[in-house]
Amino acid sequence: MVERLRGFRDFYPEEQESRRLMFDRMRESCLEFGFREVSGPSVESVELYANKSGMEIMNQMFSFKDKGGRDVTLIPEFTPTLARMVSARKDLVKPLKWYSIEKFWRYEEPQSGRFREFYQLNADIVGSESYLADAEVTSLASDILKKLGILDKVKFKVNSRILLDRILGEKGLKKEETYLVLDRWNKMTDEDKEIYMKENGLDPGLVASIADGSVLNGLEDEEMQRIAKIIDYVKSSEMVDIDFDLKIVRGLSYYTGYVFEAWDKEEKFRAILGGGRYDEIIGQLGGEKTPSVGFAVGDAVLENILKSSGKWGKVKRKALFLAMVDDAGKEYAPRVSKTLRENGVAVDVNTAERGISKQLDYASKMGYGYVAIVGENEKRNGTIVLKNLNTGLQEELSLERCAEIAEKIEQS
Amino acid sequence: MVERLRGFRDFYPEEQESRRLMFDRMRESCLEFGFREVSGPSVESVELYANKSGMEIMNQMFSFKDKGGRDVTLIPEFTPTLARMVSARKDLVKPLKWYSIEKFWRYEEPQSGRFREFYQLNADIVGSESYLADAEVTSLASDILKKLGILDKVKFKVNSRILLDRILGEKGLKKEETYLVLDRWNKMTDEDKEIYMKENGLDPGLVASIADGSVLNGLEDEEMQRIAKIIDYVKSSEMVDIDFDLKIVRGLSYYTGYVFEAWDKEEKFRAILGGGRYDEIIGQLGGEKTPSVGFAVGDAVLENILKSSGKWGKVKRKALFLAMVDDAGKEYAPRVSKTLRENGVAVDVNTAERGISKQLDYASKMGYGYVAIVGENEKRNGTIVLKNLNTGLQEELSLERCAEIAEKIEQS
Repeated sequence: MVERLRGFRDFYPEEQESRRLMFDRMRESCLEFGFREVSGPSVESVELYANKSGMEIMNQMFSFKDKGGRDVTLIPEFTPTLARMVSARKDLVKPLKWYSIEKFWRYEEPQSGRFREFYQLNADIVGSESYLADAEVTSLASDILKKLGILDKVKFKVNSRILLDRILGEKGLKKEETYLVLDRWNKMTDEDKEIYMKENGLDPGLVASIADGSVLNGLEDEEMQRIAKIIDYVKSSEMVDIDFDLKIVRGLSYYTGYVFEAWDKEEKFRAILGGGRYDEIIGQLGGEKTPSVGFAVGDAVLENILKSSGKWGKVKRKALFLAMVDDAGKEYAPRVSKTLRENGVAVDVNTAERGISKQLDYASKMGYGYVAIVGENEKRNGTIVLKNLNTGLQEELSLERCAEIAEKIEQS
Repeated sequence: MVERLRGFRDFYPEEQESRRLMFDRMRESCLEFGFREVSGPSVESVELYANKSGMEIMNQMFSFKDKGGRDVTLIPEFTPTLARMVSARKDLVKPLKWYSIEKFWRYEEPQSGRFREFYQLNADIVGSESYLADAEVTSLASDILKKLGILDKVKFKVNSRILLDRILGEKGLKKEETYLVLDRWNKMTDEDKEIYMKENGLDPGLVASIADGSVLNGLEDEEMQRIAKIIDYVKSSEMVDIDFDLKIVRGLSYYTGYVFEAWDKEEKFRAILGGGRYDEIIGQLGGEKTPSVGFAVGDAVLENILKSSGKWGKVKRKALFLAMVDDAGKEYAPRVSKTLRENGVAVDVNTAERGISKQLDYASKMGYGYVAIVGENEKRNGTIVLKNLNTGLQEELSLERCAEIAEKIEQS
């Protein structure tokens, strides 16, 4: 028996329906914020990622030679595609507010909240360098978490690489080495940190004052004020737990200024979402320099948090099962199902050659509250027998009274 | 500049929004018919397709070795994944009615209505051998085309491989050779057909009587009656142009009985959708024998037909642009946007550092009918200035009168 590949997932109906709810709510937020949907290919030239994505991503790509000998890859992230799409169209009126929900692939070791194939919502404002753009994407991120019902369980941590780099410069700390230890600060033991800092010639006291934010006390800095304005903006539209955290660096990738992440307050899970400002990448791809800011939310961590907070949605369907007792019922069924569907009731028509009691069993196992039963008699009368599977009660109703039938189903 | 790969597509907002409308309508049909959504991986083991998919598909796969040395492929079709998912779960109550909308990949020569990456809706009834299942999936296919507004431009052609094979057997015609010429009947010239039939030892008169359906005259056949019942069922719920066409064989792939296709009546395009009964494939994958029937609709031909029939949807957005005249306006903006959004108006907040006249230009280029303008004065008064970009008229409105604002936008 051929099996599913490791790190990949199958979604059966119940799971898939809840996932669709999750994506729909995210989409709703994007639309309310005036973001418009785009979509790109799942396969791109490997070249698109060279020098732009971090080495970690480059090493995890599902890349291969296609039948035409091109070096191609399944997309590991959205920003390079976005940059390509923006560069390819000179007529676009900027700033652009774009979102997308796409699948991505990375060859990593599968674990909780991490798969080889996953979905991400990406939302970006392209072509503005104003703090307003940074603030608006962060507000969108908080609105998404609010619509999903978990905003009160989340804290936003914000930082700026410009600010951080300035502090590192003033304090004489080496950039890459300090970034690395800040990035892993909460995962490392005190001992490991000490060893790492000693080995890399970093002053532990200075690094600690960055990690705990005390270095900001009394600091007068333009970029720090810019970030403070972003925080104020986000707070003034929503009650959000949001504050500076100089440890947020977002790896070694293409961010150039403002960066942010959202975490569950207890930090039991990985980051729920993250993003920031990337002012260089579109220019590097052959377009004009186009300052941009955006973020991405993956499906896997989000799903874990929604489930653990009791916020995993369940779809309620206004639906019934249509059973047939004889050949006349089978002939009559399409008329019945059409009429009910036109009145807003989803109709799952029996498609098996089995007797009425087995059909009722099936309907019950499938979770239906009502079954419409039709046969010779109902066909002649233009009626259905509507059976409530919970009470066992049934009544014959004219098909003309569909609205009434729809109402009963609604309440079930 | 790195370019998009050949045969792949970028979807910018306007296009993408119309595409989403198209998929949403298809989804709506599926839900009304009691079909439930599933989703699977985009990458599967190559082994899953061996001996099941036709050779044509096998040769067109985007297959490669992953970093673990596995022979994997981007999925070229959905049925093998469906079969795997069904086989993997012994607890599923059958029949199943499942649909999915996924991306697929085939390395073909790109041309009108054919891309290397495309979307398909798949809808299947798994675990029923009744004609009711064949009829219900065909009804669903017709309902989808109805919701898209093109059912009156479409004809359904139905056939059965059992019936066709019986006729071929009785007439002594070789199966594979006859299938091939029937499959290409409408694309071949009379001369080419004649040459082909001569070379392959097929009696032209006999083959012609199959192609034009005259061989069915006076035929008494159980399978033919079964197909006639399917046709009656579909017609009794919807005005559909549907009839026998013995030329429909659906290639050399895994179909075992009933097969059908939908075409635009003038046959200017390729088949819009196609499907049929596949009773063996799930059993071949290691599960129990599970008679099933389903169909697939691709996005590309559908899009061409919708566009050429004037049925390509356009999304109407209840939205406005929020402009700021000063710093007070920037501070006030989040409160304004939040209030308007809560009243159902999408708000595209200005995120650029530019003056009010440039902001209005931008709003106009982006197609907004209304702009809300805020500054010091409005912040103090708790108001907005609502400007109609078409008439140039503007008025100051209390933010408390949002419902009224929402109504104006609605009508624009």
